[in-house]
Amino acid sequence: MSAKTFSEDHRVVYYETNVTGVIGIGRLVDLMILVSGDQSDSLGVTDQKLSELGLGWVVTQHVMDITRLPHANEVVTISTKAQEYNRFFCYRDFWVTDQEGQQLVKMHSVFVLMDRTKRKIVRLPQEIIAPYESEYTKKIERLAAPQPVNDATASKKYRVRFMDIDGNHHVNNVHYFDWMLDALPADFLLNHRLTKMNIQYRQEVYYGATVSSQVELDQDELITKHVITTEDEKNCNAECHWEKISD
Amino acid sequence: MSAKTFSEDHRVVYYETNVTGVIGIGRLVDLMILVSGDQSDSLGVTDQKLSELGLGWVVTQHVMDITRLPHANEVVTISTKAQEYNRFFCYRDFWVTDQEGQQLVKMHSVFVLMDRTKRKIVRLPQEIIAPYESEYTKKIERLAAPQPVNDATASKKYRVRFMDIDGNHHVNNVHYFDWMLDALPADFLLNHRLTKMNIQYRQEVYYGATVSSQVELDQDELITKHVITTEDEKNCNAECHWEKISD
Repeated sequence: MSAKTFSEDHRVVYYETNVTGVIGIGRLVDLMILVSGDQSDSLGVTDQKLSELGLGWVVTQHVMDITRLPHANEVVTISTKAQEYNRFFCYRDFWVTDQEGQQLVKMHSVFVLMDRTKRKIVRLPQEIIAPYESEYTKKIERLAAPQPVNDATASKKYRVRFMDIDGNHHVNNVHYFDWMLDALPADFLLNHRLTKMNIQYRQEVYYGATVSSQVELDQDELITKHVITTEDEKNCNAECHWEKISD
Repeated sequence: MSAKTFSEDHRVVYYETNVTGVIGIGRLVDLMILVSGDQSDSLGVTDQKLSELGLGWVVTQHVMDITRLPHANEVVTISTKAQEYNRFFCYRDFWVTDQEGQQLVKMHSVFVLMDRTKRKIVRLPQEIIAPYESEYTKKIERLAAPQPVNDATASKKYRVRFMDIDGNHHVNNVHYFDWMLDALPADFLLNHRLTKMNIQYRQEVYYGATVSSQVELDQDELITKHVITTEDEKNCNAECHWEKISD
C-alpha cells in the first residue's frame, strides 16, 4: 500500500519574497502546511472533525533540503503524502517542484495528535489515520536533533504580537523562522543561501511573551544554530546550513 | 471613456487570518496591490519597464470602507481600475466582493510615480498612463487626511526586521498595519471590528530603524488615531473607525 499523494499549484507573489527575490522560508512552510490541510479536508479529516474529538495536529519537527527557493511570479507545485505512521507519530513528506518538474525543496515532517484539553499526545485513532492510506510501521524514526547553541554569537528579543497568533491562539510557524533568521547579520542573509534546515518545536509561545532568539554562526562551516527561549524555557531550536551566493 | 477593470479571485487561507478568524487588513491590502500589479503587467506596464525608465509607483494614501472582512477558506473576487489621473496623481479604486456579489471592502488609493534616483515625484508620462484608459481630470482630489494623534494613549516600539523589507529594500505595506494595530490593547482588537481606515504614507522607513507606533484610542467614538515615527520624522499616520462585535 502506498500513501495518497495530494498536490496544489501556487504562484509565488511579490509579498511572499524577501529582499533577495526568493520566497521566505517561513512562507514556504506555511504553503506546505496549507496543502497538507487541504489534503486532510479532501479526505474528510477536517480540523473541525478533529476539534469535535478534542484533538489537533501538532508539528514537532521539519527537516528540509533546499536546492533552490522559487522567485516572485514563479509557479510551483507543492505535493505531500503522509508516508508512514506508528502509534504516536505521523511522518509526512512534502516536495516542491518547478514547472519543468525539477525538485526545489523537500521536507520531512513529524506530526503528533494532541488532546487539546489535557495538552497530551494521544494514540493515532484508526478513523483519523486510515483515509491517508499511510503505511503502519513499528519503528520510531530517529531523526537527528538540531545541534544545540553552545556559544551564541548574537541575540535579539521579540515581543509576540497580536498578528502573530492564529485562530487557535497559537503562534504561526512563520514567526519562528522570522525570529530565528532575523537574528543573523543582514550581510550574511544577503550573501548566503539556505540549503538545509532542521527545526524542532518543543514548547508553545503565547501572546504577549517576549522571546529571545539566540544564534551561533559558524562562518567556516556555514552552519547556524538557533534557539528560541522564553524565560528559562526552550521553545524551539534549529540548525541551518548555508552556501555562499556566487557573484 | 471608462477605465479598464481587472479582477482576480482569491481563496483566503488560514495563515492570512488573525485570531478573530478574518483576514488581517494588511494582508488584504497586499492582495489588492497584487491585483493592481497584475493589471499593470497585463497592460505591458510592468515594474521592469518602469524600472528601465528609472521610475516606480508609490502609494501615498488608502481610504478603506469595510462592510465585512472575509474569513478563512472564503473565495473573494478582488477588482481594480485606475479611474482618473491628473499631472501627478493616479486615483485607483479597489473593491472586494464575496461569491454572492456582495461588496465586502472598497478602497480608494492615490498613487504617484517616483524618480528612483532623484526620489522626486514626476509627471505621469502618457505612455505609462494611457493603457489603463483612465479619465484625465484637471482637479486634484482633496481627500481628508487622517486625524492627527494629539494625546497618545499607548505606544510600542518595533525594529524593522530583515523580512520586513522587499526586493526594492522598502518596508512592505503590511508591516505598517501590523505596527499600528498591534499597539492597541488585545482586548480592544478581539472585541471590535474595523469599519473604515484612512492611511497616509509620508516617509519611507528603512531596515534596522526602530519605529515608534503611537495610538490614541477614543473609546466613546470608537476611533483610533495612529502615527508611526522614526526619531523626529512622521513616517505614516492613520485613522481607524471601529464597531463593537455583538455577542
